[in-house]
Amino acid sequence: MSTSAVYAIILAGGGGTRLWPASRRLRPKQLLSLGGDESLLAATARRAGAVVGAENTLVVTAADQELAIRAALPGLPAANVLVEPQPRNTAAAVGLAAAAVVRRAGPEAVLAVLPADPHIADEAAFTALVRAAIAEARQAIVTIGVTPSSPETGFGYLRVGPRVGGDGSLAVFDVAAFVEKPDRPAAEAYLASGQYLWNSGMFFLTAGRMLAEARRHLPALGEALEAMVGEADFTAAVRARYAAVPAISIDHGIMEKAAGIRVIPGTFGWNDVGSWAALPAMRPADARGNVVVGQAALIDGDGSVVYAEPGAPYVGVVGARDLVVVATRDAVLVIPKNRAQDVRQIVDAARRAGRDDLL
Amino acid sequence: MSTSAVYAIILAGGGGTRLWPASRRLRPKQLLSLGGDESLLAATARRAGAVVGAENTLVVTAADQELAIRAALPGLPAANVLVEPQPRNTAAAVGLAAAAVVRRAGPEAVLAVLPADPHIADEAAFTALVRAAIAEARQAIVTIGVTPSSPETGFGYLRVGPRVGGDGSLAVFDVAAFVEKPDRPAAEAYLASGQYLWNSGMFFLTAGRMLAEARRHLPALGEALEAMVGEADFTAAVRARYAAVPAISIDHGIMEKAAGIRVIPGTFGWNDVGSWAALPAMRPADARGNVVVGQAALIDGDGSVVYAEPGAPYVGVVGARDLVVVATRDAVLVIPKNRAQDVRQIVDAARRAGRDDLL
Repeated sequence: MSTSAVYAIILAGGGGTRLWPASRRLRPKQLLSLGGDESLLAATARRAGAVVGAENTLVVTAADQELAIRAALPGLPAANVLVEPQPRNTAAAVGLAAAAVVRRAGPEAVLAVLPADPHIADEAAFTALVRAAIAEARQAIVTIGVTPSSPETGFGYLRVGPRVGGDGSLAVFDVAAFVEKPDRPAAEAYLASGQYLWNSGMFFLTAGRMLAEARRHLPALGEALEAMVGEADFTAAVRARYAAVPAISIDHGIMEKAAGIRVIPGTFGWNDVGSWAALPAMRPADARGNVVVGQAALIDGDGSVVYAEPGAPYVGVVGARDLVVVATRDAVLVIPKNRAQDVRQIVDAARRAGRDDLL
Repeated sequence: MSTSAVYAIILAGGGGTRLWPASRRLRPKQLLSLGGDESLLAATARRAGAVVGAENTLVVTAADQELAIRAALPGLPAANVLVEPQPRNTAAAVGLAAAAVVRRAGPEAVLAVLPADPHIADEAAFTALVRAAIAEARQAIVTIGVTPSSPETGFGYLRVGPRVGGDGSLAVFDVAAFVEKPDRPAAEAYLASGQYLWNSGMFFLTAGRMLAEARRHLPALGEALEAMVGEADFTAAVRARYAAVPAISIDHGIMEKAAGIRVIPGTFGWNDVGSWAALPAMRPADARGNVVVGQAALIDGDGSVVYAEPGAPYVGVVGARDLVVVATRDAVLVIPKNRAQDVRQIVDAARRAGRDDLL
């Protein structure tokens, strides 16, 4: 085992409307306490801190979310919140963190890049996977792939190549290909083949490798990151350079182009909380498959989600079949579970109605 | 035509949970503006006032609703609100009004007894029926029967007897029988027979006849009403006597027992607003049969009702089929239209949850 430093890089700059009305621009999904009393972000930071320590846990976020993120993570050192001056997608966000880590601990330090907002039910299994991926990251870029349990069309997939290492249940494979979100028949074929994994968006690599890959595949980003590493005033360098870096995801900008990426497959109760339909996987359901959270009553319901935030009106639902009802202080959503992805249409309607306060 | 006085008696003491969460104990159905900008009560008072004048329009209400009723009817003379010291159902409420009218105008004055809360779409037809019923009330107790358009099981019916008068389209018949709310097969038979009318709850009779019928069928009430007529201080007499009068509806207590009741059948867009499912009959619906009121968006809905009161959260509904969604400042209801009568179950749940503020 190398003794080089390990840093968790939590990507917490996302917006997204899929959990509206609970999620808003200034209260993004990662700040919601969907799985219990703890926000998704706080749970991610807690899991990361258990492996690398809070002092080595960095959070990258957007300028307009900084205050909310700091408030949600009171145990995090103040300097560990890295603020993007402008949103520039995840390649730049990871690059920013890599530059900060090189300045702190040198290029051999390992980055554990973690999206802020998945729900993870089996934390012990997850921690074992993270430790294995960190160890492997000293030789290669490593990702964690989720063994699929259904033909999901909302995720990217990884096609698994030859086994290259690992021991016991934690095997390490080459990644043969990154695969875009499939249609339903393709997703079913992927599931049946056993050769595909869900792309969890978690990556493990050294800070120096991140800078090198940026230089190779996104030269404008690589050059900006070198300046951020080299100049005396990090904050000033970030401010001067960040606006000009390319806005592209780390998947498309780097991972799909980099050579020799490896994957460790695992099953750890991973849920990307892509819509309200995910709630029954995160909360205990009753005998008829209903999840009721908050000041609410559900009479004669099946397979339904009723979620009333503190401060929301009391919610009474009768005879719901596979329905989602969500109430906040200022908005209510009613949508069939199988259309939960269509929340955006309501957000668009609110925008057209001039209700920017709801966005 | 006699020139005896005519008084409208608007019965506005009702509670009821069928339009929860908009209707509450202290904001009963008649105070809701379901059909437009005007409350059901205000519309009833306006229609009555157009026939008898505001000075001859009396409203009987419950003590805890008095202030709200007065506020809803700013044009009504203050003395025309009669307050029941305790709720004692409609026989007593009409008796109270009859006693007040005898004191004002003598026993020959005609009472037009009108429930506060039906919606009436064809006001010209209604007014003509009321004028005919008032004229007839000098000889008999008269009611207005609604020609049924569907096999409703939620209404009482009148079985029509021989024609006894009237002219043109406004015929007068004997009432052969008052009939309780039927089951579905009976309601279908009633509709097919053409011999049954919906009981609108509107009655026309002289004040003296009301006192005489009370004396005959509800002696304790009759005696109390005589005291209210005879004693110098009406308010004191009411307070002293009202608690002891029998609590029974005017239908059960008097009308079903009285002799020689007549009915004038009519069609005037009558709707008793018995549940949220009634709203499409009161508000213009879109091409897919949806009614959307207030700050709300309905995407891809059919046959649905979305009703957001001022001050309620914004309501977004996707993919609703025959669904009712109602939001107030402090409560939300989601219920299939064909179960709209089951609102009570939610009210009961709120009560069990200790949310008396919602009742």
